[in-house]
Amino acid sequence: MEFSSKLLENAVHEVSQLPGIGKRTALRLVLHLLKRPEAQTQHLTNALSKLREEVNFCKSCFNISDTEICEICANPKRDESVICVVEDVRDVMAIENTSQFQGLYHVLGGKISPMEGVGPQDLNIIPLVNRVKEGKVKELIFALSSTMEGDTTNFYIYKQLEGVDVNTSTIARGISVGDELEYADEVTLGRSILNRVPFERSLKAN
Amino acid sequence: MEFSSKLLENAVHEVSQLPGIGKRTALRLVLHLLKRPEAQTQHLTNALSKLREEVNFCKSCFNISDTEICEICANPKRDESVICVVEDVRDVMAIENTSQFQGLYHVLGGKISPMEGVGPQDLNIIPLVNRVKEGKVKELIFALSSTMEGDTTNFYIYKQLEGVDVNTSTIARGISVGDELEYADEVTLGRSILNRVPFERSLKAN
Repeated sequence: MEFSSKLLENAVHEVSQLPGIGKRTALRLVLHLLKRPEAQTQHLTNALSKLREEVNFCKSCFNISDTEICEICANPKRDESVICVVEDVRDVMAIENTSQFQGLYHVLGGKISPMEGVGPQDLNIIPLVNRVKEGKVKELIFALSSTMEGDTTNFYIYKQLEGVDVNTSTIARGISVGDELEYADEVTLGRSILNRVPFERSLKAN
Repeated sequence: MEFSSKLLENAVHEVSQLPGIGKRTALRLVLHLLKRPEAQTQHLTNALSKLREEVNFCKSCFNISDTEICEICANPKRDESVICVVEDVRDVMAIENTSQFQGLYHVLGGKISPMEGVGPQDLNIIPLVNRVKEGKVKELIFALSSTMEGDTTNFYIYKQLEGVDVNTSTIARGISVGDELEYADEVTLGRSILNRVPFERSLKAN
């Protein structure tokens, strides 16, 4: 791509560093900003800079928060004996949206992935182990994605907690509500039969 | 979407103002920036601010340029008697990539579109008419997209140039090179027959 302006080329280059955004999309976005009032670009760059400079992670669960301890951890109505272990902030938002979980979270900040150079020391695993060892936590729910990396991370944390008195569980894998059986993959369908639920319990969930 | 941080919410809101980027994608992009070193966010915001503040349009053709007159207009080897009229900077880049055009450009900055509130006065049409009236221009090639808005804009400019001694043409519409006839739409196929090219000329083009 040949640019008529270094400024334009530079802006397109930086935008195309974002995941899933190629050079063409970046050019479209940058030209859009040029057509809009200068204030829009200012708002955008200010919001990003301010977030990056002032971002704060909850000292307890590592969720993004404007306060030292996030709203969820600070809420006395939440059950501090159950901790749901998630990969990132989006997972917290997704689970909060279900209104089905009253416990606290622990945001790892990723999964163990040797391929991408992410080791246990890059994640918030030691603070989690310390949190559990304090003795208030009775159950740890692993809610990582069900990939090899997710399973490895679950197992690593499980091993770190050997000898500690805490129950561990993983979220249920099964057929999505509303999905047709014939289109489900074998592994999911297999697990949904192995981990079947008493019918009375499934009635209560509805 | 419930955010645990105002800073995060604000950043996601601003990013989701960009065309084709919804709230979920915006959240993914913003969280990506948070995982990367702070310098990357700085480079991005600096490049966008600098472009928006210092952007300059060529005084002659309105292409984005770091100099008062863009490289194309300033190049003495280009044929200043032919002007290709395009919608925006991306079209200049696309045509330059073909290496088939040795004339100059004129960037309108959009198309006449009453639906989107874009009238002739919002585009660089008057400077184009003045440029042609100076007398050096022998041919004007309309290379706008072949939509109702594009056709309207072509016709508006054509009317403004009534009585001025200049040839006008539009780029050829036809079947793409390498395309199968059976998948072409009727209008394009019809035009490609009406505007057929002597076989000897098509041999030269290859």
